[in-house]
Amino acid sequence: MRIAVVTVGDELLAGDTVNTNAAWLGTRLGERGVAVERVTTVPDRVADVARVVNEYLAEYDAVIVTGGLGPTHDDLTMEGVAAAVGRAVEEHPEAVEWLTEHGGYVAENLAEGTAHLPAGARVLPNEVGVAPGAVVESVYVLPGVPAEMKAMFELVEGEFEGTPTYSETVVTSEPESGLLDRIRGVREAFDVTVGSYPGENVRLKVTAADPETAERAAGWLRERVDLVEDGA
Amino acid sequence: MRIAVVTVGDELLAGDTVNTNAAWLGTRLGERGVAVERVTTVPDRVADVARVVNEYLAEYDAVIVTGGLGPTHDDLTMEGVAAAVGRAVEEHPEAVEWLTEHGGYVAENLAEGTAHLPAGARVLPNEVGVAPGAVVESVYVLPGVPAEMKAMFELVEGEFEGTPTYSETVVTSEPESGLLDRIRGVREAFDVTVGSYPGENVRLKVTAADPETAERAAGWLRERVDLVEDGA
Repeated sequence: MRIAVVTVGDELLAGDTVNTNAAWLGTRLGERGVAVERVTTVPDRVADVARVVNEYLAEYDAVIVTGGLGPTHDDLTMEGVAAAVGRAVEEHPEAVEWLTEHGGYVAENLAEGTAHLPAGARVLPNEVGVAPGAVVESVYVLPGVPAEMKAMFELVEGEFEGTPTYSETVVTSEPESGLLDRIRGVREAFDVTVGSYPGENVRLKVTAADPETAERAAGWLRERVDLVEDGA
Repeated sequence: MRIAVVTVGDELLAGDTVNTNAAWLGTRLGERGVAVERVTTVPDRVADVARVVNEYLAEYDAVIVTGGLGPTHDDLTMEGVAAAVGRAVEEHPEAVEWLTEHGGYVAENLAEGTAHLPAGARVLPNEVGVAPGAVVESVYVLPGVPAEMKAMFELVEGEFEGTPTYSETVVTSEPESGLLDRIRGVREAFDVTVGSYPGENVRLKVTAADPETAERAAGWLRERVDLVEDGA
């Protein structure tokens, strides 16, 4: 299962907000063996949301969209997603019901748009905030506020199933350019993929189809590189 | 000037690393009046880098690519960028010179690929790390390690020029759905754009072409919403 994540919001592009939602989704989906293959941030504009979601819908097994729900003029994600799948946006009776029963809202006072979803969408209740999410075709539309996004993702998490992989990370004090022989060695000796991530120290991440292979490959490396003692 | 940022790396998609580089670039470019209109994260795969960079090159005034430089097998960004602009990857004499003179390397010992850049590229020295960056056509290729990326961006920052805008942020304890009248009001009374960002509190960000308008619009809002005292 291959996934694209589309995060909507001028505040992400402007750097006012760091995109922690994408990292959280990557981790959670990774634990289920589902690979996130694209993360794209787009502005709060209907045409941009529509175009990117439409493109990714054709290419990936599912698209997760976060942000830009809610009642204000810059909350345009539902319109964009509806356009991407060629549907109208309309007030959704189930969303109105949820908001009035659980959100303490009076139906007549609901801000325009709050209960508007792509026609025929499945409603996802927002157990932490107000604006409901939606599933339409294979597009999952979640809020941008992290606590709301996480709670809503957990409602649909079971719909994402892949083949889990197992990783171990070895942290070394050696420079990356000196590690090429050991990286080649571990890739030849074990059926693993290896990622090399420089920073203050280099992190070598070995990933395998079973935990034993990952552990053996990491052990092979640990015997052959200068380790950082605290593993940091 | 409209910019796209492409961040390369499986570790970003897997959620092992939060994409702080994109936020930092968004802030720095925003200060220069340059809008980042897309941020896309792609895997460490030549074809993915090539395709996305090629597409954005056609659409944006410049593309900034970060990550996936360096000598290891998963550092494929230069190959991808070269493919995007239809050029070969070749050892670059200036990059070899930089690495041997400043990096303390012996040319014969340079790891394969470290000094390989798209043909005809301008070399960007890496004053904090090892792998050089490059500029080819309007693609700026920077390292993924934040300290290296920031130092290298500062070498080329002057090439990004836009029309600065001025923002003020008002933090309110009111729920977003109750603020619609005031948001409409400030947009009608002043020549500003308004972003509404819910979270623990709602942040209203007003942006104008001059600082006086931004300040007056924020003042208008501050008189009319319930403020969060510490501004947090």
